[in-house]
Amino acid sequence: MPYIKLPEGLPGIVGPMAYRPETAKPLNELAEILLRGPNTLTPGERELIATYVSSQNDCHFCQTIHGAVAAYHLGGNEQLVLDVKHGAERAAISEKLKALLAIAAKVQRGGKSVLPEDIERARRKGATDQEVHDTVLIAAAFCMYNRYVDGLATWAPEEPAAYRESGARLAREGYVNSIPGAAAAAPAAS
Amino acid sequence: MPYIKLPEGLPGIVGPMAYRPETAKPLNELAEILLRGPNTLTPGERELIATYVSSQNDCHFCQTIHGAVAAYHLGGNEQLVLDVKHGAERAAISEKLKALLAIAAKVQRGGKSVLPEDIERARRKGATDQEVHDTVLIAAAFCMYNRYVDGLATWAPEEPAAYRESGARLAREGYVNSIPGAAAAAPAAS
Repeated sequence: MPYIKLPEGLPGIVGPMAYRPETAKPLNELAEILLRGPNTLTPGERELIATYVSSQNDCHFCQTIHGAVAAYHLGGNEQLVLDVKHGAERAAISEKLKALLAIAAKVQRGGKSVLPEDIERARRKGATDQEVHDTVLIAAAFCMYNRYVDGLATWAPEEPAAYRESGARLAREGYVNSIPGAAAAAPAAS
Repeated sequence: MPYIKLPEGLPGIVGPMAYRPETAKPLNELAEILLRGPNTLTPGERELIATYVSSQNDCHFCQTIHGAVAAYHLGGNEQLVLDVKHGAERAAISEKLKALLAIAAKVQRGGKSVLPEDIERARRKGATDQEVHDTVLIAAAFCMYNRYVDGLATWAPEEPAAYRESGARLAREGYVNSIPGAAAAAPAAS
């Protein structure tokens, strides 16, 4: 049972976003730019960072839905998503992405946990300033989304299969128009 | 020294926001709505929540600038801001705000730390659904802003007095046009 009265049947962050569309708008715009905007990191890599941080924060909804989005971008490779969650250093991903995930894990613990050697490692593996910037902000943003979802005790389906379809839709269509309330407020297509 | 090359002389979050205006836009819009939009919580109360969470996250820039904004809204009462940071339960604030700050402190630790009794206490003191929602989201959002500022090792002035003028300006003018890069991109006033 969520701690406040939310529209029923909407999983995870969708409930509070439909409840408060004013704040949903910048929250979704931020996700859209960070995860799907023009970038030298692929959408799959960025969704893996989001999934990894959400997993470290033990947020069931966020790690499962963004894991599904990541898997879609990665050609349906759900095993790779699980491998990253369970031990990024041993997963079949680039050395650069491993270094960026290590930065993201530090951000999850707290901003001051990120050390110069974490950044140096990422640079040695080819990370640019903007890739470091975006990794820090994606990790920081998911420390927000995860707390928003769990701090209000929102409802979410348990089984991963329930997330596959929504994950594919978010991967194809993005975050900006992903909230029922916001969609209802837009002019209907005829 | 920040971990990436940022425009020089800009304190705290202003540096990375000027570096990446695409993400600065939704970040500032979120702050504007949460801290200054129409609300039954006063701007002073909301800035106190932001300051308190930033203090718990040990983010010098955020707790000092939002502390200055809060003090401005509270008629210049800098001592009250310090009192809240150093022990919210003993500060001269309403019982409702104390209960909301206790929720915010739980969110800072992690979303799942918020318990039904934390919400019940806030309700007994008169908090509405939206006040609970906004407290959770303000606290979650500052867990993001704080990590963004410290995860990139941004520079910020030490002494609180340096923040008084910027705090007053933010309190009067808001967050949306607070970034030099964004302002420079807008048409010049003549």
